[in-house]
Amino acid sequence: MRLSKYLLPTLREVPAEAEIVSHQLMLRAGLMRKLASGVYSYLPMGLKTLRKVENILREEMNREDAVELIMSALLPAESYMASGRWEVFGSEMFRLKDRSNRDFCLGPTHEEIFTETVKNTVKSYKQLPMTIYQIQTKYRDERRPRFGVIRSREFIMKDAYSFDKDEQGLDVSYKKMYSAYNKAFKRMGLDFIIVDADSGAMGGSGSQEFMVKSDIGEDTIAYCEKCGYSANSEKAVCIPDPAKDEEMREIEKIHTPHAGTIDELVEGLNQTADNFAKTLIYNADGKFVAVMVRGDRDVNETKLANHLKAVSLELASPADVMEITHANVGFAGPINLGIEVIADNEIMNMKNFLVGANESDYHFINVNVGRDFTPDFVGDFRTVTEGDTCPKCGGKMKICQGIEVGHIFKLGTKYTEALDCTFLDEDGKPKVPIMGCYGIGVNRCVAAIIEQHSDEKGIIWPMSVAPFEVILVVPNMKSEEQKEGGEKLYEMLKNEGIDVLYDDRNERAGVKFNDADLVGIPIRITVGKKFGEGIVEFKERKSDTVLELTVEEAIKKAKEIINAEK
Amino acid sequence: MRLSKYLLPTLREVPAEAEIVSHQLMLRAGLMRKLASGVYSYLPMGLKTLRKVENILREEMNREDAVELIMSALLPAESYMASGRWEVFGSEMFRLKDRSNRDFCLGPTHEEIFTETVKNTVKSYKQLPMTIYQIQTKYRDERRPRFGVIRSREFIMKDAYSFDKDEQGLDVSYKKMYSAYNKAFKRMGLDFIIVDADSGAMGGSGSQEFMVKSDIGEDTIAYCEKCGYSANSEKAVCIPDPAKDEEMREIEKIHTPHAGTIDELVEGLNQTADNFAKTLIYNADGKFVAVMVRGDRDVNETKLANHLKAVSLELASPADVMEITHANVGFAGPINLGIEVIADNEIMNMKNFLVGANESDYHFINVNVGRDFTPDFVGDFRTVTEGDTCPKCGGKMKICQGIEVGHIFKLGTKYTEALDCTFLDEDGKPKVPIMGCYGIGVNRCVAAIIEQHSDEKGIIWPMSVAPFEVILVVPNMKSEEQKEGGEKLYEMLKNEGIDVLYDDRNERAGVKFNDADLVGIPIRITVGKKFGEGIVEFKERKSDTVLELTVEEAIKKAKEIINAEK
Repeated sequence: MRLSKYLLPTLREVPAEAEIVSHQLMLRAGLMRKLASGVYSYLPMGLKTLRKVENILREEMNREDAVELIMSALLPAESYMASGRWEVFGSEMFRLKDRSNRDFCLGPTHEEIFTETVKNTVKSYKQLPMTIYQIQTKYRDERRPRFGVIRSREFIMKDAYSFDKDEQGLDVSYKKMYSAYNKAFKRMGLDFIIVDADSGAMGGSGSQEFMVKSDIGEDTIAYCEKCGYSANSEKAVCIPDPAKDEEMREIEKIHTPHAGTIDELVEGLNQTADNFAKTLIYNADGKFVAVMVRGDRDVNETKLANHLKAVSLELASPADVMEITHANVGFAGPINLGIEVIADNEIMNMKNFLVGANESDYHFINVNVGRDFTPDFVGDFRTVTEGDTCPKCGGKMKICQGIEVGHIFKLGTKYTEALDCTFLDEDGKPKVPIMGCYGIGVNRCVAAIIEQHSDEKGIIWPMSVAPFEVILVVPNMKSEEQKEGGEKLYEMLKNEGIDVLYDDRNERAGVKFNDADLVGIPIRITVGKKFGEGIVEFKERKSDTVLELTVEEAIKKAKEIINAEK
Repeated sequence: MRLSKYLLPTLREVPAEAEIVSHQLMLRAGLMRKLASGVYSYLPMGLKTLRKVENILREEMNREDAVELIMSALLPAESYMASGRWEVFGSEMFRLKDRSNRDFCLGPTHEEIFTETVKNTVKSYKQLPMTIYQIQTKYRDERRPRFGVIRSREFIMKDAYSFDKDEQGLDVSYKKMYSAYNKAFKRMGLDFIIVDADSGAMGGSGSQEFMVKSDIGEDTIAYCEKCGYSANSEKAVCIPDPAKDEEMREIEKIHTPHAGTIDELVEGLNQTADNFAKTLIYNADGKFVAVMVRGDRDVNETKLANHLKAVSLELASPADVMEITHANVGFAGPINLGIEVIADNEIMNMKNFLVGANESDYHFINVNVGRDFTPDFVGDFRTVTEGDTCPKCGGKMKICQGIEVGHIFKLGTKYTEALDCTFLDEDGKPKVPIMGCYGIGVNRCVAAIIEQHSDEKGIIWPMSVAPFEVILVVPNMKSEEQKEGGEKLYEMLKNEGIDVLYDDRNERAGVKFNDADLVGIPIRITVGKKFGEGIVEFKERKSDTVLELTVEEAIKKAKEIINAEK
């Protein structure tokens, strides 16, 4: 491809709209443009990389006998109503009506539609197991689209769904997808870890996420360097600190004016936060519950929602807190509260601690479980923190941020039951297939690759997903010798089956070299001043070394690198 | 691919929802399923053919230096408001609001968005000409979705847009697309004709449609077998019948009770319809006009709308007709009407004809133009009919139906002007690029191919778009010899790089052969009773001849056919 005929609008400046490296570089390297908040067009070079990522996914899916099909994005409401998700998705679902006033949505994910398809086409156990997938455009009206294509509102997803006769079958199908995902992300050049993930309140017997470690990741990962245990912080099991060996002291109400936060209490009472217990009032689907965690811990709302099987969970409003506790926010406590009290395991090991007195500007100190109050339910309701004890090996947990690029999930029968999907089993009786679902955000993969493969000059594409394999630069198009050399080498490279971008623009050498670094094609070949002697410059984007090679050597070396890395 | 692991739900019965052959066969051969009116999912084999059609288009586009990118389907309203099409599309456009109540649509076509992209990325004449295209999903809320994917509401379109410095440039870009379309449709095995098409009221200097002749086509085509002139009936130029050489008779008002239609007049007055002139009252963007055509002719509303530059054009309501003519519908006439009268050319050649008297149950006879009334405007406002005089050579016109599969259009500056898209020309001055647009309905191509390539047993795919190249049938999987033979041949065919569907199901031979005919893979190889002697059956789907060949001969012959036809 001749750059003079291509659409590659590179930018010198960092666009103001972009906070993170991948977003900046996708705009600067002319891969995409914003059409609306969270909605992007892919310019030619962005599209090429996107398609390469898709093809890697397609190959790895097909290798595991998954079969590709494609559903519509415009979907009638009925299936989502049957599964209950028409409500669950809330304002995250784009909804519209057709000219006959019928309800439609833009599919946020397709469990329902794949289930309907299997219901209508699979009749017998002989047709199972079956894993079907699509690479298709999805829509989610995110509250806060950001980071370019990492959290966008229109995006491409590779979503696969497995249907099995029984749990053992699901295990096999799940492992095949696990394997396919591993291979696919490796081929893309991603450095990732696989973490235990939350399976949600609605059942499902296991779930893992493929995370690319990155400071800008929106997910928090807890991992143990000793034994390898790793989990999304939503899911990571927390081990309580050991019980304190201390005499119970007498409970006492103290005046704590305006000390409605842990920080204010720490300062006012000159104690550490682990001597306090927070009591937070939540509204779970309209019902109020109190949740206690140690003062220096955070409530894990995912664990709480799962325990309560809540669709909607949020902190109670100040007005509701006032009505329940008869006090301002910050003074709730478990004693004589009048609503259900759920306590984190760790509360049970605390002694002589502080809680709110359910009276504005007052707390109790020297509170003890059992004597002063008894929780209605005790369990793991806090979020893991750095230095926590590993639940597997007793080592110390570490915390990092990650970008979720893939998710595999043993769904169970939630959708097949809701949509009345059955097959005739070997014994002639109708049974409900057991599902798994498996998703990869294609655009997000592109961004994650750039997060991990770039430097201050621009992108450094891995060969497997590079939009072109070689960029051919002629620094001075006014030199007839260089120009002729460029044309000649361009034809030679194309004839060797190399996908080459030929920078034949009438631009200054500096502009060309900067653009080449910015757009990150893995191999750069320059037809410069020594071309008269049959010498070209050969440079890999990822290396600082510039080699002087003959034309033949350069082509040979390019082919070797391409074949090794593709 | 093993059929036992594939999703290919064939149907014996013709589905009640399908009126036409391609729709029936796409459902029966398991290519697709309906998800909602005019919305379909593509099952694995349907998707494979769809992708083959897309790849043919991609290759032919790239060959003409068009550059691929991809836009979103979810589009903000602003660009469409700037071009005026937010109103024009009316209820055909799917509209929705996001969570911030911002207006979006699902793109029905992308002229505005491509123009915005060029506006933001192309600065200089050096970057022109540029033709950019996408293969992307579009949405139109059709009043009457029908014929399966021929008129659907979610569909894939290959849409290209050219940007040129001047008209000569546009001519070149247009010819390149004309050539690409010709090649692409030929490669798909389509028998098509290219017809002159309407360019619309909003300018545009030329337009042609690629039509597949078919009785179920929704477009009417007029063509001359003598000189090759052909045009969409919306556009076809009409030559008036020669003037009658007749003395003017005295005008007379006659009583014609209840004769408000041409048929009733023909019967009541015992005359032929070509002695009558119809006067129809139209509402064009709220303004009323009368249009006269000969009694046996139809008003061509496209020609009328273009002349009036009307966005909305419809027959006036009976109440409006009553107010304007002071008579019931059917008695309007040009004499003393009080609104603008537009006459078709042919009216000028008529003598002593009948018109409505603007009085219920009365007509005038022996009316003559010039003496009794004078039209405000005269032009070509009727629709061509079989036997009309060819406007090019004077021969006789024929009429047939066609499916529009492609449309190429010299757009001009409508969008670039509306959206303020300019480039700096060689003289340093800003200029507005001249656009062309070029569209192909991908799904519709698949249906059109089936309309032209099928028989009573099923589809007969051209090799170029066939979902598989060979279907390998083992009629009796209970025979160890045949089963082993099937496995062996399956591996051999795959090793030769042949895309083979292996029917390894435990089904009766009759079911397998019927399915093979239905799904229409071009070559069928059967491992039957003579496999012990090294003999297999070789049959092309399009032929009735079954050959007995050795395994080696069969593979060789398959490769020859594939290479010749691919």
